[in-house]
Amino acid sequence: MTEPARTREQRLADARYRLEHDVDVWVASAGPDGGAPYLTPLSFLWDGEAVLLSTPATSPTGRNLAATGTVRLGFGLTRDVVLVEGDVTWVEAEDIDPAVGDAFAAKSGFDPRDDTGYRYFRVAPTRVTAWREVNELRDRVLMRDGAWLT
Amino acid sequence: MTEPARTREQRLADARYRLEHDVDVWVASAGPDGGAPYLTPLSFLWDGEAVLLSTPATSPTGRNLAATGTVRLGFGLTRDVVLVEGDVTWVEAEDIDPAVGDAFAAKSGFDPRDDTGYRYFRVAPTRVTAWREVNELRDRVLMRDGAWLT
Repeated sequence: MTEPARTREQRLADARYRLEHDVDVWVASAGPDGGAPYLTPLSFLWDGEAVLLSTPATSPTGRNLAATGTVRLGFGLTRDVVLVEGDVTWVEAEDIDPAVGDAFAAKSGFDPRDDTGYRYFRVAPTRVTAWREVNELRDRVLMRDGAWLT
Repeated sequence: MTEPARTREQRLADARYRLEHDVDVWVASAGPDGGAPYLTPLSFLWDGEAVLLSTPATSPTGRNLAATGTVRLGFGLTRDVVLVEGDVTWVEAEDIDPAVGDAFAAKSGFDPRDDTGYRYFRVAPTRVTAWREVNELRDRVLMRDGAWLT
């Protein structure tokens, strides 16, 4: 049975809970030459303003994000989604702020600084949508042009 | 706690169960001009050989799939994934085989033939991988070049 559509306030609260508590996210990127989608799950850390990911510089996702600076993230389940479009910047693993690196390792269970060739990718959200079923497609936009619609 | 890695036979059985029983899938596509990833959940039907999706021809996913003919599909959860790369062909909604259209509607709960502007997209898998945790990254390939590794 389809539940009643949530209010925008409830969706914002639910989306933020997911950003703060989920461990993994679906990461969709694209090759710079067109027509080459990539999709993989990665662990993440939400710092209140951005999503931090880490993957080797030479992985498909690492190469795509560095080349294009854009990403789409799918949080949650296919019938309880939070979709994030964002702008991507990156630093080499050894250049991360130590406290941020520690927080990422504590959250994700792996520390990219222990390995070689890893980068951190910081996704600053520009647009966020959230919906469960068709009845929630209306009012699904929670952030536009980087601003939460509170 | 991490479970022991599944055998390839078990992963094949689990992947096929998911293809036959799951209702939605994460669909990652890319714009033909490069650097424009798109990600959205869609309902699907597995016919034993291919994944059938439907979305409006003018939606971002519809435009990308028609232009590029390639897709990545993420089934399941971020820690129990089945990833499919495939080649895409499409037909207008009204041109689908009636029995296939009926099966799609019964499975997904919506019938694209009732609306205007929908197409069906058929994804023929070329590569399938499946894993839960890091200990399953080895042996994660279940299909290569369109052939199941049975």
